[in-house]
Amino acid sequence: MAATPALLACDWGTTNLRAWTLDADGAVLVDRDFPLGVSKLAPGEAARRFEAEVRPAMQGEGLPAVMCGMIGSNLGWVEIPYLDCPAAAGDLGAAMAQPAPGVRIAPGLRCPGLAAAPDVMRGEEVQVFGWLAADAARRTGRQVVCHPGTHAKWILIEDGRIVRFVTAMTGELFAVLRRHSILRSDADPDDPDAFDEGVVAAGDGGALAARLFTARARVVGQGAPAESTPAYLSGVLIGAETASLPELLGLADETPIALLGDPGLTRWYARALTTRGREVSEHDGEAAAIAGLSALAGLEGVR
Amino acid sequence: MAATPALLACDWGTTNLRAWTLDADGAVLVDRDFPLGVSKLAPGEAARRFEAEVRPAMQGEGLPAVMCGMIGSNLGWVEIPYLDCPAAAGDLGAAMAQPAPGVRIAPGLRCPGLAAAPDVMRGEEVQVFGWLAADAARRTGRQVVCHPGTHAKWILIEDGRIVRFVTAMTGELFAVLRRHSILRSDADPDDPDAFDEGVVAAGDGGALAARLFTARARVVGQGAPAESTPAYLSGVLIGAETASLPELLGLADETPIALLGDPGLTRWYARALTTRGREVSEHDGEAAAIAGLSALAGLEGVR
Repeated sequence: MAATPALLACDWGTTNLRAWTLDADGAVLVDRDFPLGVSKLAPGEAARRFEAEVRPAMQGEGLPAVMCGMIGSNLGWVEIPYLDCPAAAGDLGAAMAQPAPGVRIAPGLRCPGLAAAPDVMRGEEVQVFGWLAADAARRTGRQVVCHPGTHAKWILIEDGRIVRFVTAMTGELFAVLRRHSILRSDADPDDPDAFDEGVVAAGDGGALAARLFTARARVVGQGAPAESTPAYLSGVLIGAETASLPELLGLADETPIALLGDPGLTRWYARALTTRGREVSEHDGEAAAIAGLSALAGLEGVR
Repeated sequence: MAATPALLACDWGTTNLRAWTLDADGAVLVDRDFPLGVSKLAPGEAARRFEAEVRPAMQGEGLPAVMCGMIGSNLGWVEIPYLDCPAAAGDLGAAMAQPAPGVRIAPGLRCPGLAAAPDVMRGEEVQVFGWLAADAARRTGRQVVCHPGTHAKWILIEDGRIVRFVTAMTGELFAVLRRHSILRSDADPDDPDAFDEGVVAAGDGGALAARLFTARARVVGQGAPAESTPAYLSGVLIGAETASLPELLGLADETPIALLGDPGLTRWYARALTTRGREVSEHDGEAAAIAGLSALAGLEGVR
């Protein structure tokens, strides 16, 4: 009876809710996205929409549910205080809140930030713990994970505990510049040559406001095709991030970097980091989220 | 007869046309802005609107007109090729185009850029030459001018010639982040304490995408008032530019920097640079534009 539903696992973020119905071995039985990100919910609405829309669609009536992401913020179902780093998977599990019978939500993590304020995340930490759980070799010594996205996270792990992370709003810079600036364009950013050109133009990652202007200058002053601007812009931004964040975190040149997240994004980070001589590996964020939520739920078939 | 009009001087940019009617001594008789920036003009429309709207409003019928800015671009009255650096005021004067009787337009400048493409400017160079003309001591040796704005220019001058410049799109980053990102806010950015906090958070100017995220973290994680975000954001961006551009240009710590432009902007640059121990001076861009255009026109009363 491997196909018996055992858990409803949810990565419930700002713009989207991603849900999986899992059996006791962590295998996916149902897999769906819902346009119910917390930014689209009215106050107090999360519980009702989950019970009325998500459970039925996921064939998850009566199942225990485990969630992570912004659903644990003040915009979500219930606000769960951030857990301070260093934090291991077990700490996260012990700090889960239960806002309704059978529903548990993991807290996010907090650590000292670049300025006086702390840095924070909600959701990526569960993917990291899922990724750590998938290979015993990752659970001792030091690991560096980069999780690209709207707000990319660079995460330092020591012996299975997240000790520090830094957020870079690279994805958001790309989105606003591509839509609203002099660099705006609807063209497809999937252009490896223009991307590589941008990575080179990013230099050491400093003086970003000046590096970005080269995206304009190459079109106006050098006749580069305007439709290559999004790919070039992506190259400058990811190039700058991948040059400056490892330095900011004090990583040695030979430290391997695990890229965890959407394969459509990790491949560009891998490309930029490889150009810089970095050793990288790519790991699917969805598989890691499922593994992390399964572990938090204590599914028997999942360690 | 000091009040006899002698010249119609125009700084005709992307969003705006600023015009001055001057007497033979370069004194301002009429002073007006027109919402006729080249981005708002239909192709071929510049000449007609200038003659039909600007001349009458400026009491400038029959006067010689001298112009600078984007009016000399492919969006303007006539496209005038960029002049390559190094370039002195006399070179600019000799390269002016005359698209209609009595109307002369100065070219912009071009120099090798940060990436393969050249960097370019149209308009700021006339302010720089006006600023140089105002003081004999500026016309020998090295000068460094920073012209803040949507696309800030850092300009190196040797013996009265512009030898190199770099553009940083700091003002545009501020505008798009303030309007369209998670940092959006309509609050007044005139908050010196929050600005200073942002300058400190900018650090050495590297890893800007990560420094910018501190603007979010201080509100979410530390309870800073959301209405201080624009000033803090301005501090991070101007702090990063003023930290990294002098380094990019290889300026020694003791090199004085002349800030030339809108006094409402130069004061924030002065604040950030002074925080970093830089020696700065502030100079009004409008006076410099008038002086530069007067000199290009060869007004007798102006050297």
